Amino acid sequence: MTNKVNIAVDAMGGENAPRKIIEGINISLQSSQKNFFYIYGQQDILEKEIAKSKLVQQNCEIINTKDVIVDDESPLAAAKRGKESSMWKAIESQKENKSDISLSAGNTGALLVISRLILNSINGINKPALAGLWPNNNNMNVVLDLGANIECDEKNLLDFACMGAALFKSLFNNNGYPRIALLNVGLEEHKGKDVLKKTYSVLKKNKLKNFEFSGYIEGNQIMEGNVDVIITDGFTGNIALKTAEGTANFITKNLKKSLSKLSILLSYNALKQFKEKLDPRKYNGAIFLGLQSPVVKSHGSTDAIGFAHSIETCHKIVRANLIEKIKSHLITVDA
Amino acid sequence: MTNKVNIAVDAMGGENAPRKIIEGINISLQSSQKNFFYIYGQQDILEKEIAKSKLVQQNCEIINTKDVIVDDESPLAAAKRGKESSMWKAIESQKENKSDISLSAGNTGALLVISRLILNSINGINKPALAGLWPNNNNMNVVLDLGANIECDEKNLLDFACMGAALFKSLFNNNGYPRIALLNVGLEEHKGKDVLKKTYSVLKKNKLKNFEFSGYIEGNQIMEGNVDVIITDGFTGNIALKTAEGTANFITKNLKKSLSKLSILLSYNALKQFKEKLDPRKYNGAIFLGLQSPVVKSHGSTDAIGFAHSIETCHKIVRANLIEKIKSHLITVDA
Repeated sequence: MTNKVNIAVDAMGGENAPRKIIEGINISLQSSQKNFFYIYGQQDILEKEIAKSKLVQQNCEIINTKDVIVDDESPLAAAKRGKESSMWKAIESQKENKSDISLSAGNTGALLVISRLILNSINGINKPALAGLWPNNNNMNVVLDLGANIECDEKNLLDFACMGAALFKSLFNNNGYPRIALLNVGLEEHKGKDVLKKTYSVLKKNKLKNFEFSGYIEGNQIMEGNVDVIITDGFTGNIALKTAEGTANFITKNLKKSLSKLSILLSYNALKQFKEKLDPRKYNGAIFLGLQSPVVKSHGSTDAIGFAHSIETCHKIVRANLIEKIKSHLITVDA
Repeated sequence: MTNKVNIAVDAMGGENAPRKIIEGINISLQSSQKNFFYIYGQQDILEKEIAKSKLVQQNCEIINTKDVIVDDESPLAAAKRGKESSMWKAIESQKENKSDISLSAGNTGALLVISRLILNSINGINKPALAGLWPNNNNMNVVLDLGANIECDEKNLLDFACMGAALFKSLFNNNGYPRIALLNVGLEEHKGKDVLKKTYSVLKKNKLKNFEFSGYIEGNQIMEGNVDVIITDGFTGNIALKTAEGTANFITKNLKKSLSKLSILLSYNALKQFKEKLDPRKYNGAIFLGLQSPVVKSHGSTDAIGFAHSIETCHKIVRANLIEKIKSHLITVDA
């Protein structure tokens, strides 16, 4: 077991939990048994689900928890009363070094607050951030913050740049210099908010050890694939992400209506490839960066396959020593 | 000529100007001769273009201008040195009551600065805003601000709500109560930035004469068609708009690659309908709202058909008495 990555799973959060969670673990184990799972939740229900798969039985330990954080609960209220919840206990297992990482498909706000309460921040990072993967013409890029911090100053944005670079390297096994860009409303140095101008000038001025600074990027360039990490505050990042989701849904729904059944059949393989390329389950798993131990949030509405993808993300992060990478990436800034 | 709408056109801005501009005017005149055009630009070039169309010759007057604002010029520099430019002179004609509205496909930043220098604000409005049309499942909605104001306070956002409602009514001949929403990162009242919470509480508390308040909306709901006017600051609005454009391009480009020629042929009519529905030329024309006389910005890269659409927008705005509507919509707020 020592060679395996130990993942603490909150089995009670998200749609169709815990069935989807256990099925996701099963899918992941079928492809490789490189992880061990500490599964937190209501024991009797979990045992029934786990009884279906020997593979899961052999690679997990159930920890009975008495309480559950529900999806529409306010984060602060959840944190206040949730000390016996599956989410809380899963994250606590990281503090106790029982697990290397934790994974939940539950209430995002509560997960962020509880993680911050239990786990210490990495020295030098004031605000942890939520990072996600975004498909582009070449592959994927990392975007952060996606909603953990509504207001950010230049120190926060610089930290995001370092953490994003470390995450990109960890996930894509990249030993080069990820290209970092700041999301803005124009490309010229004088454009945009003051906080962006300040961050721009620091990034431009400093010799960057671990990544390359590509300047500003506009919203329409996010998917062009010319940069690897896109930095923004949590308000803007959340609006951009959801606007992209809404636009993608709108277009694919309307296009589907426009294609005859026969023409869909005729392009079946190519359309399937396209659908696979854009399958949101592949990008499932937002990573909460900046704490001494990483926490991954699966989309609440994803299915078992999506959940299995977020398990893979957990594995990569631990194997790549993300936290150590972040520490070595932090820049001391000559402001 | 008295029954016509008088449109001042800056013929020298945007790609392929002035040819595209004159062709756009010609297309517009072919469908209806309800507008008269004061065309500002270099007389010799314009005369050559206009010589091609009797219709344009009969419905325009050329005003020779000596200078041109170029696309990559800084707005302030352009405003400082641009008093003899086609853009400046076109807007000045509004001040002189020679024209009802002006239209330019040139440098957006310069257009905003020059408009503000020449035209007075509507009493009670501190910051004019740039509004655009966004397609949705039902029809279109109005979104503002798309980039005129990077920072906005609650007074600005309330003004945007009133101006947006007046614009929606003007463009869609709507005499009801447009549904207004604030763009945010969550739907609950306590979510998001302080300025949004303050705006929310004012809109909720006040009896609104001219529109209905629908609360918050998230980025993925912009295209759902459940609201008519979406309010946001210029930074967020610009990022959202461009992210949507980038996403739409990414998906349609990849889908095109995935469809076989035969299957495109088989769905030809339906795909054509879809393409027409989403044709960005139809949404061409961002409206600068809040000045005593309206200014419309055509996309610089649109073609003659797109430019003709923005002429139609100009016509509707003047015929619907947009400025009077805005004045009557402004709310005195019990904060």
